[in-house]
Parts: sequence; C-alpha cells; structure tokens
Amino acid sequence: MKRIAILGSTGSIGRSTLSVAESYPNRFQIVTLAAGRNIEAAFEQAKRWRPRVISMAAETDADALRARLKKEGLNQIEVVHGAAGTVHVATHCEVDFVVSAIVGVAGLEATYEAVRAGKALGLANKECLVAAGELITAEARKQKVALLPIDSEHNAVHQCMRGGRIEEVERVWLTASGGPFRNTPDSEFASITVEQALNHPTWKMGKRITIDSATLMNKGFEVIEACRLFHIPPSKVDVMVHPQSTIHSMVEFVDGSILAQFSVTDMRLPILYALTYPERIPSDMRFQVSDLRHLDFSPPDLKKFPCLRLAYEAVDAGGAKTVALNAADEVTVAAFLEGVIRFDQIPQIIEEVLAGTNCEPLGSIQKVLEADAEARSSASDRIAVQTKTRPRVTSFV
Amino acid sequence: MKRIAILGSTGSIGRSTLSVAESYPNRFQIVTLAAGRNIEAAFEQAKRWRPRVISMAAETDADALRARLKKEGLNQIEVVHGAAGTVHVATHCEVDFVVSAIVGVAGLEATYEAVRAGKALGLANKECLVAAGELITAEARKQKVALLPIDSEHNAVHQCMRGGRIEEVERVWLTASGGPFRNTPDSEFASITVEQALNHPTWKMGKRITIDSATLMNKGFEVIEACRLFHIPPSKVDVMVHPQSTIHSMVEFVDGSILAQFSVTDMRLPILYALTYPERIPSDMRFQVSDLRHLDFSPPDLKKFPCLRLAYEAVDAGGAKTVALNAADEVTVAAFLEGVIRFDQIPQIIEEVLAGTNCEPLGSIQKVLEADAEARSSASDRIAVQTKTRPRVTSFV
Repeated sequence: MKRIAILGSTGSIGRSTLSVAESYPNRFQIVTLAAGRNIEAAFEQAKRWRPRVISMAAETDADALRARLKKEGLNQIEVVHGAAGTVHVATHCEVDFVVSAIVGVAGLEATYEAVRAGKALGLANKECLVAAGELITAEARKQKVALLPIDSEHNAVHQCMRGGRIEEVERVWLTASGGPFRNTPDSEFASITVEQALNHPTWKMGKRITIDSATLMNKGFEVIEACRLFHIPPSKVDVMVHPQSTIHSMVEFVDGSILAQFSVTDMRLPILYALTYPERIPSDMRFQVSDLRHLDFSPPDLKKFPCLRLAYEAVDAGGAKTVALNAADEVTVAAFLEGVIRFDQIPQIIEEVLAGTNCEPLGSIQKVLEADAEARSSASDRIAVQTKTRPRVTSFV
Repeated sequence: MKRIAILGSTGSIGRSTLSVAESYPNRFQIVTLAAGRNIEAAFEQAKRWRPRVISMAAETDADALRARLKKEGLNQIEVVHGAAGTVHVATHCEVDFVVSAIVGVAGLEATYEAVRAGKALGLANKECLVAAGELITAEARKQKVALLPIDSEHNAVHQCMRGGRIEEVERVWLTASGGPFRNTPDSEFASITVEQALNHPTWKMGKRITIDSATLMNKGFEVIEACRLFHIPPSKVDVMVHPQSTIHSMVEFVDGSILAQFSVTDMRLPILYALTYPERIPSDMRFQVSDLRHLDFSPPDLKKFPCLRLAYEAVDAGGAKTVALNAADEVTVAAFLEGVIRFDQIPQIIEEVLAGTNCEPLGSIQKVLEADAEARSSASDRIAVQTKTRPRVTSFV
C-alpha cells in the first residue's frame, strides 16, 4: 500500500490522481491533501478519502471546512491552512509519495520540504523544475529520492531512459504539437489576436498554457525541466514538431538507437506510472496500435519562436535566469491576454527582463521567490513603458 | 576485452561483426571463426584476425587453407572442418560470446553446444529459433546465458523490453515493410511472377528472404522467433505494416505505454548492441531525427498473406510444426524461383505439409534435423504432384 499526499488535490492533476487511486483501492491510500480555495470540492474529497490531514489555502476556508466536517462527524480529519499547512501535508510522517501539482510558485516550499523529508515525488508542477529545479534536484540527489515526472513528455523520456544508462544518452527529443502558428508566416506574428492564440489545434487547456504553447515557451520550459530532471546539459535536449502528438518524446543513445514512447493522451497514465514505478500495473488506457496511420515530424523554427531560444539561453546560464523566464512569461502572457501588448512583444519583453537578471546560484526557496518577484516587477515596468510609447491593440481594449 | 567466436564469418553478418570488431580494437578479440566454402575470404580473415581456430565446411578446403596459412608463416592457427569443426569453434574455452550467423540448419548443433557450454549468444540465424527454438531457449534458461537477437526487429524488441519486466509486457508489435504486394489485390496473387516477387521495394537481400518478405513468411518466422526469444505466447505478438521500416518494432506494456525503437538500417548496430549489452557504446551510426518526416502504418491482411497465419498456427502447436514450416518454405520457395509452382501455391503446399506434421516436442538437435528432412521430402513430393497435375508456369521454364 503506497501512502500518498496530493498537493493541489482539487486541480486537474489532483483529481486525476484521485481517479487513479479510486481504480486501485488495494494499492494506494490517500493520507493527506492540500486543496486550494474550493471548499465544496475539498469537503467532498475529505468525505470520500478520509485523509489524516487536509490543508486549505486560506485560514477562513480552513475554518469553514473544519465546521462542515465536524457536522458530518469527521472531527478526526485535521484541517490546516496556508504555506505551513501545505508543508505539513507534504511532510506528514505517514506519507510515502507526494504528488506535487499546485500551479505556480505556491507549491515550491512544500515540494522542497517533501524532498528534504525523503519523500518520493511525482512532479506535475512546472515551477518546481523551471524556477527551483537546481535546488530541488540537488536535494533529491542528496536524499536519494526518486523524482518522477507527471507530464506526458518527461514521463515518456523517463520510460525511454530505461533503455540505457544516463551516461549513454546522446540526446533527448521532446516532441511538440507546434501550436496554432506552426504554419503562420513570421511577418504575421505581430498581428496575431488573442482569439487566434487561444485556439490551440490539439489541446483544450488553461489560458496561460495555451499561449505558452502558441509561443513554444511551454516547450522551452520542458527543455529546462528535462535538463534538470535528467541532469543533462541543454545541448543534449532537442525539440521536434510532431502535430499528431502521438509520440510523447524520444531518447537517442550513444550507439545510435532511439527509443520513443507513446500511449493514449490521458494524464492518468503518467500518474499511474509515477505512482507504481519501477513496477507497471495493468490499466484500461489502451492505445489502439491498429488505429496508427500517419505520423508527421519537422524541426521547429527558432527564429519564429524566440521563446524557445530564450529558454535554452536561460537554462544554460542558470541561477535566477529560469526563475525570471517563468515569471516574466506569466506577466507578459497576462498582458497579452488583456490586450495590452502584442503577441510578438511577449518574447521581446521576456528577453529584456532576462538581460537584467543575473545568474548566480539561488541557495534557498526564499531566494527563488525573491528572484521571482523581482522579475515580475521588471516585466510589469517594461509593459508599462510599452503601453505608454505604443498604441494599445484596440480590438482587445 | 570480449572474446568472440563467429559462426558464418564470411557471410554478411559475419563480415559486419568483423567490421564492428575493427572499429573497437580495445573491446573485442576475435578468437575463433567458422567460415563456409570461400577459402580466399577465410584466408584473408585468418591473416587479419589471427584467430586461435578457423573452421571450413569441407575437409579439402580446410587442407587448402592450412597449406596457405603455413606458407604465410601462420602455422599456429588451428584449421578444422565440418560440423565437428564448427562445434569446436563455438565451444572454444577462450570464447565468451558466440555470433551465430550460419544460414540454414547447418549452424544448429554448434549453436546449441555453445549454449550448453555457457557462452553468451548473438543470434542472427533464423533456424536457431524457428526450428530449434524450444530446445535452445530452454537450454539458455537452464544455463542462464543471454540470447541477444541480431536482427533489427528483435533487437528493437529487446531494447524496448528494458522499459519494464517481461510479466509487464502486454504485446510485442513487429513492424513489417509489407513487401512488394502490400497493395496487390488478392485476385492477382496467382499470376505474380518471379521478377515481381524479387523486386522488393525496400531491401536488397538474398532470393529466399526476398520471397519470404513478399509472402510475409519472413514476418511469420519473426513472430515465432519473438515468442521463443522472449518466452511469450503468439497471442502477445502482433504485426504492423510500416512501409518506411523506420520503427523497427514496438513493445506495449500492461499500463498502456508503448515503446518503439528506431535507428539507421545498418546491421552493425544490432551487432554492436548484442556484443556490448548491457552497456551501450558510442557509434557513428546516427539516425538523423531531423530528417524524420512521415511514418505510415496499417494492419496486415492475413487473408492475402496466409504464410503469416501458418506461422502463428505452427508456433502455437510447437514441436516439429515450426521445423516443417521453415523446411517446407525453403523447398517451395526454391520451386517457385524455378518456375515450378505459382506464388499462391507456396502457402498451399506449406499448409499441406504442416497438416501432416505432428507437434510432439523434439528432444534433441538430431530430432530437429530429422523433422527437417521429413518436411523437405514431404514438400518435394507435393510439388512433384502439383507439377504433374498442373501446367508449369511457362514464362519461367
């Protein structure tokens, strides 16, 4: 019986993890949960899963949840809140495995503390590896705990890596759908509208990640994550555009052999893999190989998608650079969505922020959070300058 | 330093193995060689590699080679011959690893004795697994020696298998080019000419294997090899037509993940893999992932290609059935190449031979060879009947 903590239990990955736990009642026990602000969902999860502890983001929500659980006769469930509450959930002595799925930098401290407490980790939070990756992976190596990626690309890489030793890896190939502007000429990028950018051809996702997919920044983040997760230099990570997204990623070995992984596109599969590794257990998530027809591939255009180049440069430099990349991207994407800046200004502003960021190592989560705040502020300042000197894109005001 | 014996050193796989050894002089030492009837090639190999022992098929060739080597001052190279000579080469006490690449049933005894002597084995000979597979793999398990496949499909499967345990394999997917008649209507199969059948769209190979590719019998043999090499039932081995032959094969795991392997099409790669397993060492055989464009897949048509169905039936039954499948195929393909029978009669005659073959286990290589001879004789008899009752295909007389 694996005893599990979920950080971000009411989000998409959190709910998928509970769905996996539901399918294998004899294998997984949900010990602690960290929810966000959705009391109703948190209450239902607490009632269904009877965790030892549940944490809410805000104290008032925790109080309200405690009262509801008491009414239900579930006094034994400890209700905590805030950053300290999330850390308590992540480091609880009965927990074996922590699923880290809180979006944004909010989950960083708890994830880091989980590693320090020697918990195995399923990583579904981008920031853990992009912003705090150097810290978290160094600590994981020190504690000898497994970091298992819960996203289709890195999970695929993890699976392919089993075909050899890490020293035998020549290159990691991350596949990319290419986003909606794969075939859009460079010259039209300045006039890309929010509607066009939100219209992703393959996936339905949140707004920020949809824009990150359109700029290929999302793939840039994945390059950084791959470098840190597998401890390989950026020169060994490459991207291949594959519109069908059937092959989730590939690993090329020094002898010239390449292994590729594919499966149905269902987050429960990488979650199940992470929860059961090094075992594999039967699931009903079958890819119909007989339905395989055509797969297409092409290299990405780094000139058209400068965000991908910026990610390579940031991870190569390290330190606060990748923190700033993530922070500046979040701020500029929000500004684009509000119609404040143009699509092609997203990489321009990020590049300016990066130029003003140093790359000395960040020795603590606190330093990461400070660098994050500084980059956000720098990006906001630059956006303010842009909006004063350039006309706003009127159609989105 | 790995000390190597090559059975079939002057054939294509043998020469590729020597080419690999040439590239890594500090890793591999050629200790013994078994050549065929090509004295000139055997002499050059002996001169270059200075093996402890070299074996020729015929005594007269061995005598001639011995004389030539003596003239060259290479008296210390022991020259032997025949079946006993090949066994001597395969079981030499200084040998660690045997590459079994003698075409046909001639290599069976030596390969079996190599396993009995505890040598690790690289298998490039179809008959070892199709005809004598039950014996050889049982002995390999008993002796705990590694059987490493030296052909692109099974080598690919071996690599993908590293992604999980054998109990976690749901299905093995062998890819097939589909041969020249992939898109030929069923109704035209009776009039397929030798020229058409020898015109394989992807590979240039020997005549028998080219016809076996056109009938998909070659893929049928590979299904049998996969069952025996990986100890899985035929229900877990499937075939997928993939005309580009980029993906060499795939393994589907119980959790729904699929791993696929690809690389350049160069026999030195599976040879290198087999020789260095479980290590991988750098090679210059690079597949240009950036050249990847389109891959196509479709399921095979078992009605059009009954040979594939016959292979499934034969391995399911076991015993002499797979011996007879191989023997009857060799005889009928030769008859087709001589214009004695039609293309569509190849599976018909093989099916008749199989119907008259029993499936009790064959306890020795001698029994395998007897079953082989019996099936050949049965196939020849049936061909003789056909040629008496049907007009010969005049264009090839």
